Amino acid sequence: MINQLAIIGVGLIGGSLSLALKKAGMVKEVIGYSRTEEVRQQALELGVIDKVANSIAEAVQDADVIFLAVPMAAMEPVLVELAEHVKEGAIITDGGSAKAQVVTAAKSALGDKFSQFVPGHPIAGTERSGPEAAFATLYQDHRVVLTPVEETNADALAAVRDMWQQTGAEVFDMDVEHHDVVLAATSHLPHVLAFNLVGMLADRDDCDDVLRYAAGGFRDFSRIASSDAVMWRDICLTNKDAILGLLHQYHQDLNKIEAAIENQDGDYLIDVFKRAKQARDTRFNEPGLIDNSEV
Amino acid sequence: MINQLAIIGVGLIGGSLSLALKKAGMVKEVIGYSRTEEVRQQALELGVIDKVANSIAEAVQDADVIFLAVPMAAMEPVLVELAEHVKEGAIITDGGSAKAQVVTAAKSALGDKFSQFVPGHPIAGTERSGPEAAFATLYQDHRVVLTPVEETNADALAAVRDMWQQTGAEVFDMDVEHHDVVLAATSHLPHVLAFNLVGMLADRDDCDDVLRYAAGGFRDFSRIASSDAVMWRDICLTNKDAILGLLHQYHQDLNKIEAAIENQDGDYLIDVFKRAKQARDTRFNEPGLIDNSEV
Repeated sequence: MINQLAIIGVGLIGGSLSLALKKAGMVKEVIGYSRTEEVRQQALELGVIDKVANSIAEAVQDADVIFLAVPMAAMEPVLVELAEHVKEGAIITDGGSAKAQVVTAAKSALGDKFSQFVPGHPIAGTERSGPEAAFATLYQDHRVVLTPVEETNADALAAVRDMWQQTGAEVFDMDVEHHDVVLAATSHLPHVLAFNLVGMLADRDDCDDVLRYAAGGFRDFSRIASSDAVMWRDICLTNKDAILGLLHQYHQDLNKIEAAIENQDGDYLIDVFKRAKQARDTRFNEPGLIDNSEV
Repeated sequence: MINQLAIIGVGLIGGSLSLALKKAGMVKEVIGYSRTEEVRQQALELGVIDKVANSIAEAVQDADVIFLAVPMAAMEPVLVELAEHVKEGAIITDGGSAKAQVVTAAKSALGDKFSQFVPGHPIAGTERSGPEAAFATLYQDHRVVLTPVEETNADALAAVRDMWQQTGAEVFDMDVEHHDVVLAATSHLPHVLAFNLVGMLADRDDCDDVLRYAAGGFRDFSRIASSDAVMWRDICLTNKDAILGLLHQYHQDLNKIEAAIENQDGDYLIDVFKRAKQARDTRFNEPGLIDNSEV
């Protein structure tokens, strides 16, 4: 049971953790802070939090667990600001989508309290945001990855693991670097690729006409290009190394496909396409028809 | 009303046209041919066709309308084979995903009968194939693009338009070149991009581990990488010019994003991502939540 939980950033991610822990009876009081006063009040009125803090200092001073659910670019300044106000033994954890940068920022900002910091990433979300988008079951049956480092206190890690399990999530531990590569491969790179395609089509004079004939396949492929631009800028900037490494490989592989099309090398294409299909079919066995898979 | 319709390739696309026209009472008799005898018999037993032809010559000799629903690579040999057996005034049309190559093949194979050829492309499909996958409502509320050329006979064009409208499809006319670019942009290129990503991940030693953490965003993005490898090889090879042109542009745009990440140029990223999001949101206004859009 958590006596007081402080949520910094009471939007979809932070608000949903609060609601899930309240529902599970795992927290006595939730105090929340968001940069905008309107958002803080809204979170209170919606019952997402129990108490509003008007500063980060106020939010964290009595908290036993502090959850940072702010955009990636805000992690470092928030960590710097809260460092001197955190009480002895309090646990700090976060929900950032890339871990190396947050860990570096936490190490520098928290000093000897760094062992109480548990880097985390709940792999869940919807395209909506703000406290009104929060709901108690967001994390149910979703994965939460924790990326403890050498200095991480074992009790703090166990407490954060337990907290997430109470929301219905499956909790996994991973190396910081491995997390960042895995997420770059399955989330960050696909977003960049989809943004790039839709951005390229949006620049065409005949964009409307082109998109009129797009069907199911394109709709699914490009859905992630509808994600929040600021959030994705932050992720690209903060997970730079992992994303650039994979982009480099992606370019090289795409060049090979390009050469095969140019040289009418059907065998090469079949080989790549078959391996891709097999990997996807093995991993994602989805029942039912796909509408318009050809287009 | 069509007296006799010949379907060359009685799979999902050909079989569904037959079933739709029978349901609409628009055809007296459907004769079908597929390369494999087993498939021909299956189509007959399932009632997808009324009569089996054991050769292309036999299939087309009495037909008033001939529909080619064979893989792209088979279009040319099939056109060559049927040319001398087609009766006077018969209309020939096809369902190929790229039009320039089929038009060139038809011009060369059909000679003075080329004016009776109406190039077409029903933008519909599922991931299933074969006569057992065919169903009468496949084309309902889907788009069919016809790409008549200068030589195309106006009556033949009108008859094919009418035929598709009877299936419940919306029929549009388009230039051959424009069709091929539009489809390359919204279908062929996305498939190549998705195949390339999943193929690249499939080659990693930690592929299983990587894909274990992939969530909704990746699932949607990569769904098209589950499409038939042979069909997509054929499309890549036959729509070569349009695909290569767009791939070239895609590479250039991706290089700019790469440079922006490298140089931590957040403004550039925001600009591309916002334009992409806006284009997609304007075109595809999907109600409801997207599960895991962040990942």
